[in-house]
Amino acid sequence: MKVARTIDSVRKLIANAGENCKKVGFVPTMGALHRGHVSLIEKAVKNSDFVVVSIFVNPTQFGPEEDFEKYPRPLEDDLKICKDNSVNLVFAPPVKEIYTEKNFTWVNVEKLTETLCGKSRPGHFRGVTTVCAKLFNIVEPDIAFFGQKDAQQAIVIKKMVTDLNLPIKIVVCPTVREPDGLAVSSRNKYLTDDQRKQATLIYKALQTAEKMIKQGIKNPQTITEQMRKTLSKQPSIKIEYISIVNTQNLQPIDRIGKKNLIAIAAKLGSTRLIDNIIVDLSK
Amino acid sequence: MKVARTIDSVRKLIANAGENCKKVGFVPTMGALHRGHVSLIEKAVKNSDFVVVSIFVNPTQFGPEEDFEKYPRPLEDDLKICKDNSVNLVFAPPVKEIYTEKNFTWVNVEKLTETLCGKSRPGHFRGVTTVCAKLFNIVEPDIAFFGQKDAQQAIVIKKMVTDLNLPIKIVVCPTVREPDGLAVSSRNKYLTDDQRKQATLIYKALQTAEKMIKQGIKNPQTITEQMRKTLSKQPSIKIEYISIVNTQNLQPIDRIGKKNLIAIAAKLGSTRLIDNIIVDLSK
Repeated sequence: MKVARTIDSVRKLIANAGENCKKVGFVPTMGALHRGHVSLIEKAVKNSDFVVVSIFVNPTQFGPEEDFEKYPRPLEDDLKICKDNSVNLVFAPPVKEIYTEKNFTWVNVEKLTETLCGKSRPGHFRGVTTVCAKLFNIVEPDIAFFGQKDAQQAIVIKKMVTDLNLPIKIVVCPTVREPDGLAVSSRNKYLTDDQRKQATLIYKALQTAEKMIKQGIKNPQTITEQMRKTLSKQPSIKIEYISIVNTQNLQPIDRIGKKNLIAIAAKLGSTRLIDNIIVDLSK
Repeated sequence: MKVARTIDSVRKLIANAGENCKKVGFVPTMGALHRGHVSLIEKAVKNSDFVVVSIFVNPTQFGPEEDFEKYPRPLEDDLKICKDNSVNLVFAPPVKEIYTEKNFTWVNVEKLTETLCGKSRPGHFRGVTTVCAKLFNIVEPDIAFFGQKDAQQAIVIKKMVTDLNLPIKIVVCPTVREPDGLAVSSRNKYLTDDQRKQATLIYKALQTAEKMIKQGIKNPQTITEQMRKTLSKQPSIKIEYISIVNTQNLQPIDRIGKKNLIAIAAKLGSTRLIDNIIVDLSK
């Protein structure tokens, strides 16, 4: 496994892979790799000839009050995970390599970024799409892998790729969960033991919604009220949003349809967690 | 010469060019090709193995009051010019091929697009950078050619390419002029005979500026006032701006430096013309 720190060296290493490199698979990450990332890497290994993982804590997707500075950066552990999972190339650039000069150019996906997490994190998705556009242009992958856990991010990236005609296939992989249902996330390590226990209610609320939809309840408000009740069992969970939206345009729906995205964002202390499920009645 | 109407066929034709296609040169245009475009095509033919010209009147770079509908579209003439100049592939898509679904994604270069033409044409450069990003992702050229006549556009595109790490070299080619100095432009054909004669004053004003700078005058205001006098000889020329700016950041300068961009936008009747020169005292 090679580790590159510069754009030039990434490009050279991929170009030199030559015939072994007919199909480049790419997993962009912010590091602090966990089982969720490993599932993306495994999918990439299975579906491409040459797997590139980027590890880059992207400053432009953090708000001024957010956790950019304290975001975990266990690089040695991350490299070991990549190596153990047959990654060919890790791109772990310093910030000044990615933002070499004053950045004036932004890629922004309108509409889809104005709901859900976009409301409370202004500029977040603009940072995500801009850095992904940059990384896509550096790595030039044939196929890139994102997690369903960040549902809005995956939908926004897919729309960017379509709208900008990027010659890349985006694959969205299922959310990986702890045995008690909590979605695996780099931010889970911020939780105290007590918060960690309470956090399981988030997935329980999503399961409540799924059950109600499968029972035939069609009014989204009836469902979100029940979810709110489930979460209110632990008053230290501060709900940011509970939304049932259209999986295409991320707009709230009036009535449960065939395919529904149910999404939660909540804070436990200063740790913000998100989770979601898609309930697809046509399946 | 091949002519493609769809993204799929462009990609296939370029992929099939194989070994003949080691270096793809690209000239993006809105058609109505003139000697300025031909100079870009000639440069592309000289500097690449396979030359792609796009002909696409991009709706997103026109304001609601601008000339999108009446912009000239002499496709047969354009194809003949391309063929006569050894172009390998023309990409002439209908609008619905480029904007297949509702476009939510915009590429925007801040700062550089807020001065000069950006002031009077809000959204214009956002349309230009977005369509160029799309065309670059479709054609995947190694090298692309733009004209110095659209100085701000060239600087904005270069900045986009740098900021988004696009693996493309941008080459800016000199402005082509009529014998009397008027910069060649697709919009010149809108001019009446009388306006056409008056329009020569634009380049005369730029030459006045060059002469003054070379004489050692350092105050930009002294120079722009003299330019304004030159242009006011024909009161039917409505000046939109006369600016002397830094060639890097496009900001007005307090004092003439080594490299100065002098730019004019003016209207003759409803026809808006732009022109510019760079005066480089270090040469």
